[in-house]
Amino acid sequence: MPDKINRQIVLASRPIGYPRESDFKLVESEFPRPAEGELVVRAIWLSLDPYMRGRLNDVQSYAPAVEIGGVMVGGVAGEVVESRTPAFQVGDIVQGPLGWQEYAVSDGRNLAMVDRTLGPLSTSMGVLGMPGMTAYFGLLDVGSPEPGDTVVVSAASGAVGQVVGQVARIMGCRVVGIAGTPEKTDFLLNDLGFDAAINYKTDNLESALDATCPDGVDVYFDNVGGDITDAVLERINTGARISVCGQISQYNLEEPELAARNLRLLIVNQARMEGFLVTKFAARFDEARKRMSKWMTTGQLRYREDVVEGLENAPRALIGMMTGENFGKLLVKVSDE
Amino acid sequence: MPDKINRQIVLASRPIGYPRESDFKLVESEFPRPAEGELVVRAIWLSLDPYMRGRLNDVQSYAPAVEIGGVMVGGVAGEVVESRTPAFQVGDIVQGPLGWQEYAVSDGRNLAMVDRTLGPLSTSMGVLGMPGMTAYFGLLDVGSPEPGDTVVVSAASGAVGQVVGQVARIMGCRVVGIAGTPEKTDFLLNDLGFDAAINYKTDNLESALDATCPDGVDVYFDNVGGDITDAVLERINTGARISVCGQISQYNLEEPELAARNLRLLIVNQARMEGFLVTKFAARFDEARKRMSKWMTTGQLRYREDVVEGLENAPRALIGMMTGENFGKLLVKVSDE
Repeated sequence: MPDKINRQIVLASRPIGYPRESDFKLVESEFPRPAEGELVVRAIWLSLDPYMRGRLNDVQSYAPAVEIGGVMVGGVAGEVVESRTPAFQVGDIVQGPLGWQEYAVSDGRNLAMVDRTLGPLSTSMGVLGMPGMTAYFGLLDVGSPEPGDTVVVSAASGAVGQVVGQVARIMGCRVVGIAGTPEKTDFLLNDLGFDAAINYKTDNLESALDATCPDGVDVYFDNVGGDITDAVLERINTGARISVCGQISQYNLEEPELAARNLRLLIVNQARMEGFLVTKFAARFDEARKRMSKWMTTGQLRYREDVVEGLENAPRALIGMMTGENFGKLLVKVSDE
Repeated sequence: MPDKINRQIVLASRPIGYPRESDFKLVESEFPRPAEGELVVRAIWLSLDPYMRGRLNDVQSYAPAVEIGGVMVGGVAGEVVESRTPAFQVGDIVQGPLGWQEYAVSDGRNLAMVDRTLGPLSTSMGVLGMPGMTAYFGLLDVGSPEPGDTVVVSAASGAVGQVVGQVARIMGCRVVGIAGTPEKTDFLLNDLGFDAAINYKTDNLESALDATCPDGVDVYFDNVGGDITDAVLERINTGARISVCGQISQYNLEEPELAARNLRLLIVNQARMEGFLVTKFAARFDEARKRMSKWMTTGQLRYREDVVEGLENAPRALIGMMTGENFGKLLVKVSDE
């Protein structure tokens, strides 16, 4: 292995507005050599997720920005190929925030063993990974759905949205998904069992919400923000819960979008709106994974992945995600399992 | 009494933007004659409150609009002067939503006896009435303050705000009040024991919040909305709670105010924003009143009233409240106790 090189994708420049491929750069570097107590992981699956856009900005937030010239951040599932720590053996399958690179060195503290009995390895990045946990806890703990509730979810065919809708169905809710192509709305209705689906790019959002939510909205799982969120808020019921997971419509704007203030809607509807980060629920991930794995076995929880081959294609895929080009959980296959 | 007349204030026209005195009309009508099962109340105190602005609009909300020509809605404390129901006796002191009129007929179902042992009658419209209940439950149940938290309250010298700040102090919080005159900020600091006060009309709000909330904001009790709320939201801590009680800065706008979207702040701070109506907590009002009455006795809970004499002056006083002309709980003294 000493002869091998490592390929990494680093941040070349800070995007303003939508990122361009030229904001990223593929570099070849020396194969990582672990120090005593460290190990090397070969990346198999790299997860691409909306939160990554925030890390490109040089602003203080809940997590630090990627530095110019630094390896892009990202969750990885891979195999331990070299180990100088007793905590991990060569051949172990692990996951952790190892970034956009073929090989990563780690001291193991940011790694977790993947339980291969729960599902295919790719699901450790998707339905059983961070997006699935986000959906599970963001819906159940933040959204507090009750049987019979009308639950609306935006970006409904995405990694988080598809799980939100299906878990809401399992909980006995009526589920309305919002997505951006006919293929996606068909998928929600025919493959995932959503009760209704709206194409926000072609349907009139206001009348489509009126038609699909005749009894109003009890829970809204917000992945997108913007006009879609405004339209849903106009239709919430008394005591509604809004679980604010993402605002992807806003992440690539060069100037903040102006909109009519609408906090009054929270008062008159006695509604709660709560933002969350999935890390808050980390102590309960194992419990959730086991429950969701069972639902996968019984066919109640399905998932769709959108796989891009090759690390070099990660930037284009991430950029495409910002406008909804992906269809399902977006993954980069960095190497074979 | 058959010779007496009743004076009422009715809605003459629907205001657009700030109401004008000409939108209201003082009318003289026949003295009310109770049917069997009804009673007549002589109004002593009429409460003026921000929610009244919403009732002037012809829109569906949590409560119906006042009709043109209809008596203005409002909470009243008064004396039973005639009774044809065994449930109430002449001389009973009661409160209820009897409207802007000297005498009101009622079947008694919307009336409650006032417990005169808890405080002066006027407090049944203020600190021990709807505004006090709003403050108590909106702070404690919706805002969930913990000892040591920094609590910010807007419209802090108003009927609700003054109670919010003092109850937060009793709970061991650090309290920052926002008000609109030097007299009001002095009152907050010197009479009510607030830790800091900001004059939003003369201070630079951003730097004043930075200076008075060096550790960020844990709880924000929002009475006003608009730019003040935006500035506070920029300074919330992880896990912050925003109790959305009112949005008085928005009630008199002819067009909705546009502002930069900021729901992202809820996500990165894992914050909760919840609107409420005080009626939700009605079953616990008695418990709260008793607790607050004790705090009044021990001097931990003070209150300031702004009394306007005479029913005919109610419209001007309500209009003045919209721009913060009142100083403390605004009451109309309709007749002597």
